[in-house]
Amino acid sequence: MKKSALAAFVVLAAAAIPTVAQQMKAENQVKYRRAAYQLMNLNFSNLEAMAENKKPFNKDEAARNAEFVTLLSTVPKGFFGEGTDKDTRAKPEIWKNRPDFDARMDKMTNEAAKLPAVVKTGDMTAFKKQVHDLGEACKACHDEYRAKQQ
Amino acid sequence: MKKSALAAFVVLAAAAIPTVAQQMKAENQVKYRRAAYQLMNLNFSNLEAMAENKKPFNKDEAARNAEFVTLLSTVPKGFFGEGTDKDTRAKPEIWKNRPDFDARMDKMTNEAAKLPAVVKTGDMTAFKKQVHDLGEACKACHDEYRAKQQ
Repeated sequence: MKKSALAAFVVLAAAAIPTVAQQMKAENQVKYRRAAYQLMNLNFSNLEAMAENKKPFNKDEAARNAEFVTLLSTVPKGFFGEGTDKDTRAKPEIWKNRPDFDARMDKMTNEAAKLPAVVKTGDMTAFKKQVHDLGEACKACHDEYRAKQQ
Repeated sequence: MKKSALAAFVVLAAAAIPTVAQQMKAENQVKYRRAAYQLMNLNFSNLEAMAENKKPFNKDEAARNAEFVTLLSTVPKGFFGEGTDKDTRAKPEIWKNRPDFDARMDKMTNEAAKLPAVVKTGDMTAFKKQVHDLGEACKACHDEYRAKQQ
């Protein structure tokens, strides 16, 4: 996918999901955002392993991982409706500071959207930087809005 | 994404995942394939609703749904390792008839991969046919290899 097409798609994606989520039960919102996070984590962990020289860089594999991360990164934001913190690690601060939460989500989505093009260049310095920047964007939300594991 | 690029990507995708899954615990394989099915179902249900005139056809929304379905359709096949039927609806016949199971999975993935281009044309007859064909491909596997809901 060309960078411009992907960027347009991500913007579109971010606009489309909340409409669906508004009509959805809390338990289903939790189910879908968890599904997205699980598959993001699976794919991002593999990118991190390559970026940290824990396994050899494989461009085809990294391209697939990057496409998954980019697309899935657009899912969770729309599935954090009010009252969806029950039995989850989502902190109530999300709904008190919604604009800040949304800004952190958007930052994450934007960093994710840069990954496919960076992988395509095969430039390892740029790849490592982008994986790092996306990891930091994930962490920025987790630090503030996700309760520590019990 | 252009049709040719998407087709190439799906082939790549199908090749890349099993390597990861082979090293993975049964419970994690179940987790990831469930996550993929959940998000596929979310997106495909919306396409079905449009195809069945239960809601108006929206090309941008359908394009997003189709991209998700195409990408996610490549996930489950690699996460059906031996011994991953415990506490699931997966029937043991999957591992007795693996070539047939895989062929049904590939048929589903191939039908999914046609969706984005069909949505792009905006041809409602073609859209309805492709949604139907993909639904049948899903059903072909469920009928044979998924236990009925308790």
